[in-house]
Amino acid sequence: MDPRPIGVFDSGLGGLTCVKRLMDVMPGEDIIYLGDTGRVPYGGKSRETILKYARQDIAFLRSFDIKAVVAACGTVSTNGLEEIAGDYPIPVFGVADAAAQAAARATRNGKIGLIGTTASIRSRAYDEKILRARPGAEIFKKACPLFVPLVEEGRIGRDDEVLRLVAEGYLRELRDTGIDTLILGCTHYPLIAGTVGEVMGPGVTLIDTGAETAERLRRELAKTGALAARARGGYTYYVTDSAEDFGRSAALFLGTHMEGDVHRVTLEERV
Amino acid sequence: MDPRPIGVFDSGLGGLTCVKRLMDVMPGEDIIYLGDTGRVPYGGKSRETILKYARQDIAFLRSFDIKAVVAACGTVSTNGLEEIAGDYPIPVFGVADAAAQAAARATRNGKIGLIGTTASIRSRAYDEKILRARPGAEIFKKACPLFVPLVEEGRIGRDDEVLRLVAEGYLRELRDTGIDTLILGCTHYPLIAGTVGEVMGPGVTLIDTGAETAERLRRELAKTGALAARARGGYTYYVTDSAEDFGRSAALFLGTHMEGDVHRVTLEERV
Repeated sequence: MDPRPIGVFDSGLGGLTCVKRLMDVMPGEDIIYLGDTGRVPYGGKSRETILKYARQDIAFLRSFDIKAVVAACGTVSTNGLEEIAGDYPIPVFGVADAAAQAAARATRNGKIGLIGTTASIRSRAYDEKILRARPGAEIFKKACPLFVPLVEEGRIGRDDEVLRLVAEGYLRELRDTGIDTLILGCTHYPLIAGTVGEVMGPGVTLIDTGAETAERLRRELAKTGALAARARGGYTYYVTDSAEDFGRSAALFLGTHMEGDVHRVTLEERV
Repeated sequence: MDPRPIGVFDSGLGGLTCVKRLMDVMPGEDIIYLGDTGRVPYGGKSRETILKYARQDIAFLRSFDIKAVVAACGTVSTNGLEEIAGDYPIPVFGVADAAAQAAARATRNGKIGLIGTTASIRSRAYDEKILRARPGAEIFKKACPLFVPLVEEGRIGRDDEVLRLVAEGYLRELRDTGIDTLILGCTHYPLIAGTVGEVMGPGVTLIDTGAETAERLRRELAKTGALAARARGGYTYYVTDSAEDFGRSAALFLGTHMEGDVHRVTLEERV
């Protein structure tokens, strides 16, 4: 057993949907979360900039004695995270691996869809992971840059006409390909799974990257006897912009009242 | 006459709508533009973070021998720019001053509307400037956070159904107040002036902050004999994220093919 905390980061607060899943499957773990709210979003930025920021985020989390890092950010997970993961003496997990494997298992007809930020869709990370798990699979991708700002404006209800219209626009061509599995490749998207699911129809299985990743991390920690032994973990949150109003925004993504402290930090830029 | 360039910055590329106006009214000026695309957008961030970034942006521009700075960013212009402007030996202009004065002149019934980013609307900068120019004016404000991502997705046509629906939602309450003048308080918004104007109706005068600021700067430079004497100026662009594809995005905001070089830079963070 290993009582050290798990470090989790995201460009902003979307990664909290993954934290929620981690809390669900491993209630005894301490979690330290970093949201880079001073530079959010990453999804429209270049691979080079995304990786630079990811390095700085991981360096901050490693200033605590953590046992693993989760990049709870679809954009980071698909833009070179694996290249830098080997630079650290602790495991670094992205959200794409477990999600790709879950999609490969879930599909019946071998047609898998992926939605995400512009940077996630530009990368070929998911293609490679899915094809490894299921050779011959067909992958159909669509960047959905408006989904994040829509979620952040709280337009997540199934009755939101703008969300519905945007989703119809983005998803029409994916639906027409006949995919039976769709990866929600951004940690914001579980909040609009209702509308996405309705637009795609009941024959399409949605894959929640945060949920798959939390389960995978639990298995990995259990395998090496590295789960914490306590009944209930503690949570600490760090952000790079104002910590004011964090609780209200966090509740949206956590789906529950936030417990734990939140602090503002400045990241070391020369990492 | 003063041949030194004018420095212009914005969180991203929206400020290029102001650069376009500067080119129109002062074709002989050299312009150096900085878009902080590595940290864009500023509009949802805290005042403290916005000011920190603005200081770093100005410090970069001042590494060239410029004669004036224009903060072509509604968010920076309304979040403490005046507090820091005095720290520099050259004039620092925001886009809010000239726009507030233009609105005060344009209104007949004394009811002025303002739309902008969350940070711009949260600030009281426009209220103070407008009331100074027109005591007793009534000011009605509405944050429109989805307008920037909509413009950046190229959804700017009058026939774009999503833009229309979002604009109707944001602007309904402003229209109902009976304002006769509306400040487009973000440098992205001139691109959607068509739809905004249609939603507000023909009785409402739209104020373009970049256009007002360009004209004001021209007058100021002319007054002190600081205009450049050349017939045609040169343009150089700097961005903090990848310079790739800059030309295509820039053309959207400049409304014309981009001329001049573009370079990627890293800002000094310890300013």
